[in-house]
Amino acid sequence: MSEPTTQTTNENWILRKIVDSKPFASFIIAVIVFAGVLVGVETFPSVVERHYSLLHFLDNLVLGIFTLEVILKMGAEKRQPWRYFKDGWNIFDFSIVAVCFLPLGGSYVAVLRLFRLLRVFRLISVIPKLQLLVTALLRSLPSMFYVCLLLFLLFYVYAVIGVMLFSGNDPIHFGNLWSSFLSLFRIVTLEDWTDVMYLQMYGSDVYQGYNQDLSGIDFSPKAMPVIGMLYFVSFVTIGTMIMLNLVIGVIINGMDEAQKEIADRNLHDMLTHENSYDQTREQKISRLKKQLNKISKELSDLI
Amino acid sequence: MSEPTTQTTNENWILRKIVDSKPFASFIIAVIVFAGVLVGVETFPSVVERHYSLLHFLDNLVLGIFTLEVILKMGAEKRQPWRYFKDGWNIFDFSIVAVCFLPLGGSYVAVLRLFRLLRVFRLISVIPKLQLLVTALLRSLPSMFYVCLLLFLLFYVYAVIGVMLFSGNDPIHFGNLWSSFLSLFRIVTLEDWTDVMYLQMYGSDVYQGYNQDLSGIDFSPKAMPVIGMLYFVSFVTIGTMIMLNLVIGVIINGMDEAQKEIADRNLHDMLTHENSYDQTREQKISRLKKQLNKISKELSDLI
Amino acid sequence: MSEPTTQTTNENWILRKIVDSKPFASFIIAVIVFAGVLVGVETFPSVVERHYSLLHFLDNLVLGIFTLEVILKMGAEKRQPWRYFKDGWNIFDFSIVAVCFLPLGGSYVAVLRLFRLLRVFRLISVIPKLQLLVTALLRSLPSMFYVCLLLFLLFYVYAVIGVMLFSGNDPIHFGNLWSSFLSLFRIVTLEDWTDVMYLQMYGSDVYQGYNQDLSGIDFSPKAMPVIGMLYFVSFVTIGTMIMLNLVIGVIINGMDEAQKEIADRNLHDMLTHENSYDQTREQKISRLKKQLNKISKELSDLI
Amino acid sequence: MSEPTTQTTNENWILRKIVDSKPFASFIIAVIVFAGVLVGVETFPSVVERHYSLLHFLDNLVLGIFTLEVILKMGAEKRQPWRYFKDGWNIFDFSIVAVCFLPLGGSYVAVLRLFRLLRVFRLISVIPKLQLLVTALLRSLPSMFYVCLLLFLLFYVYAVIGVMLFSGNDPIHFGNLWSSFLSLFRIVTLEDWTDVMYLQMYGSDVYQGYNQDLSGIDFSPKAMPVIGMLYFVSFVTIGTMIMLNLVIGVIINGMDEAQKEIADRNLHDMLTHENSYDQTREQKISRLKKQLNKISKELSDLI
Repeated sequence: MSEPTTQTTNENWILRKIVDSKPFASFIIAVIVFAGVLVGVETFPSVVERHYSLLHFLDNLVLGIFTLEVILKMGAEKRQPWRYFKDGWNIFDFSIVAVCFLPLGGSYVAVLRLFRLLRVFRLISVIPKLQLLVTALLRSLPSMFYVCLLLFLLFYVYAVIGVMLFSGNDPIHFGNLWSSFLSLFRIVTLEDWTDVMYLQMYGSDVYQGYNQDLSGIDFSPKAMPVIGMLYFVSFVTIGTMIMLNLVIGVIINGMDEAQKEIADRNLHDMLTHENSYDQTREQKISRLKKQLNKISKELSDLI
Repeated sequence: MSEPTTQTTNENWILRKIVDSKPFASFIIAVIVFAGVLVGVETFPSVVERHYSLLHFLDNLVLGIFTLEVILKMGAEKRQPWRYFKDGWNIFDFSIVAVCFLPLGGSYVAVLRLFRLLRVFRLISVIPKLQLLVTALLRSLPSMFYVCLLLFLLFYVYAVIGVMLFSGNDPIHFGNLWSSFLSLFRIVTLEDWTDVMYLQMYGSDVYQGYNQDLSGIDFSPKAMPVIGMLYFVSFVTIGTMIMLNLVIGVIINGMDEAQKEIADRNLHDMLTHENSYDQTREQKISRLKKQLNKISKELSDLI
Repeated sequence: MSEPTTQTTNENWILRKIVDSKPFASFIIAVIVFAGVLVGVETFPSVVERHYSLLHFLDNLVLGIFTLEVILKMGAEKRQPWRYFKDGWNIFDFSIVAVCFLPLGGSYVAVLRLFRLLRVFRLISVIPKLQLLVTALLRSLPSMFYVCLLLFLLFYVYAVIGVMLFSGNDPIHFGNLWSSFLSLFRIVTLEDWTDVMYLQMYGSDVYQGYNQDLSGIDFSPKAMPVIGMLYFVSFVTIGTMIMLNLVIGVIINGMDEAQKEIADRNLHDMLTHENSYDQTREQKISRLKKQLNKISKELSDLI
Repeated sequence: MSEPTTQTTNENWILRKIVDSKPFASFIIAVIVFAGVLVGVETFPSVVERHYSLLHFLDNLVLGIFTLEVILKMGAEKRQPWRYFKDGWNIFDFSIVAVCFLPLGGSYVAVLRLFRLLRVFRLISVIPKLQLLVTALLRSLPSMFYVCLLLFLLFYVYAVIGVMLFSGNDPIHFGNLWSSFLSLFRIVTLEDWTDVMYLQMYGSDVYQGYNQDLSGIDFSPKAMPVIGMLYFVSFVTIGTMIMLNLVIGVIINGMDEAQKEIADRNLHDMLTHENSYDQTREQKISRLKKQLNKISKELSDLI
């Protein structure tokens, strides 16, 4: 942008114009939406059976259009096609197209379908406002880092304690560190957390807290009414408190920026107001000055 | 409002006065509330049985009053009754009255009852504060558009992946795209989301996560402990994060407006203060000016 | 306060001093806490059995102290004891004491125990900060009125529709208007709302959504997959949206006041700053004035 | 800091330098993380079995490093090693190291493992930002005191009423004051609160709301449809409202501080702006003054 004249020599102007044009963007959006619908339609087995060849053709058509788009965009860079890869989203676009040309088959068909599905996310890169939103979401992540670290510490300590205390009584929820983490994640979302608590409080032989077939799993039931209660109530309290802090951090971050805008606007208004107000004063002072000048003139004239 | 004199010729003044009067509005509110109570009372079969004719009479009375209201309001426009339809809420009122005159019977009785119920929403159009609130709610929708689009993208991608991965193991929750969407909506409200997760983690043959009669449904149970966990934990995390952003957006929107008001008030206070403060300074400067004038006078007098 | 001299004649100074003293208030707080603990202890049958007479004596002691407090406070008003009832909290205190003297027995013992329990709430009236908090809570209620009205309209319409559609299929949750309201309240708290939805979607004969003995209840099971889904998903969406608005309203209200304080403080700071800043300017102007005066003097002296 | 010269005589400079150096801090962080991972690894019985001696050695290594750290930090205080204990976090560090030297065995092994786990929390004291976050969390607790007291009052009154009303019908949830409190805590998190409500509404003989073995527990089932509903709906409404106030208080607290910063910044900007603006006016006034001086000079020169 700052050096358009030097760049133009490296670019194919006609292609650049096409690629950057509004209709081209709209067309690509339409194709992405169509590709998304296509993947959705393919989840209905009956439709796939009946219209297999049509769907296959449309799939290839979409792939062809996307390939053409990549070629056009690369071509728009003329002699330096590698500059196309400078944009992270272009790399994403390219990978999604390239992977479909890989000779994948058999058990990899599922992977291919997943890649075809991920094309839908291209909407984010194509619609500027969505890109802005996602960028804002990603940019707010670093500010959460330390709260998340604290949350992780809490999870880790409670997960290890959970395994120490409850692995015998409740191997499903606290059998090892991973299931312990998962159970704590569940508890922090407040989803049926009392079931997990009652299992430890009353013992897994008394409380039927499982919906699953338990054959082949070793249990050594043990009721821990007080420890169980303290463990879960304290975790729910501290966990939701830290989560709340995380949410508040995000809210304040968002408002901080909204506030800055308002404050800037107000400051601007105020200064503008004062200026206009002061101009009348300025006029008075200038009138005073003129008067003084007249005095000095009269003085110098007279004396 | 800006041209009352030209419009008055087209209006029936007496009707306009009646229709816009406070008692008329209060009477209509009372009738709407009464109509609402009536529909509520009609949900008790025993009452309907005993007082059928009375309820029928009251229903017709309400209908008559509403019809009269429409006629009066149309008449208030005098020679241009079609101007009545310029207000969207009037169209709503009219439709609700008109539909009750349709010769609906048999299976359409339920539809008619629904329309009679919808009269309750006329309260919104009649009570200005409620209308304001609903308008504000509706006006905040466009600002949510892109967050909702992002949420939809997330739902769509996870719904398609859900069908791909889990349709065999759990046809109830992920059998097709629609049930997949419904299950994801349920999960984003955090309602028993672990049940759905455990079904995929342990397989539908091991985990008894259904409360319903499953005869006639084909299952191909398959346990996916790692993929199931990743799918649901990531969805819950990303989904609630985007939802949180939606909520924050609404909060900031609301506060933005509240802030603007406060800021305006403050600015006003400040300028008023400064003005009053500056007036004393102005007075000092004017005194200075007067002094100078005196000097100049004395000078001109003397010299 | 504005007319202390005229009032003192009607008051017993010594009693007033005692009643308003810090130790008296602390003693009453201690007695209230003790009374609360007493009621709590009485929920343990074993303790009541063993120490019945002691508990009875302590209960009467507390009652005696409270009676004395009322008499002292009334006495502090001297010749106009009815002025004691001018304070709403005093009426509350008096009622709680008075009701314990009623010759209640038999089945009313439970009511008496409830009244003894309500003494705990006297803490609110005795601790000023708690009183402030509760007053703030109660004062924020009117600002919620219209959102609550809107919420009620939504509840009412959905409750009536619920009875119309689902009373046959699910008489437990939608049998009449009251149970319909309760079920909708439950759904708006997102508590197991899918169970209620699945009952209508799959029919109560297919989906085992009840934990209770259903003998004696008439069912006419009917599956409504699409209508059921639309009803519940729309209610959850609209309901939580209005609830969110209610919450936001309360938050903004709270912040509004916090903001006003900050803004006032800022305005004050700014004006103070400007004043101090302007004083130096004022000094300059005054110096200028003095100079001018000197000039005028010199002029008048010389000429 | 204010008196570094007097203190240096009491300190061992080389040790102080080592202890306060960046690499030393990083090394300690690494050791803490390693100790944390070690405790996590020890939750896997298979790993412990195979690598018991290695784990034991690493444990002792970590203990040795921590002991050395304490000695170094104490030594850095030179002749006043007790000054080491002036920092609360140092006391925490010391206790964790010291307890591992206690001759604990047998049933105390679990306690020892817990202490080894708590070392992970040393990360908070070592990473300044985490320490800041935790301090902020702890400092926000006092501001919540009165809301928590109010919440406790509500819990207490409802718990006692719960025992009075429901202890016979539902001894599991309301058998005594403690289980009553736990049930109310559960209800305020909205976790399956309807199950508890339905148990009282329909009676524990009709509603199968328990997942546990109930042999040996005395039930006197009693259905309380209206009282049960009122009790739970009112508790959910009031409880969530007070909780909401708690959350809002925390949010406002957080924003208050964020606001103050912004306001300060704005005030600063404004004053800077005004200053720069006024300087031009000042220049005008000074020009005016100079002119006047010129006049006075000319006057004195001439006259």
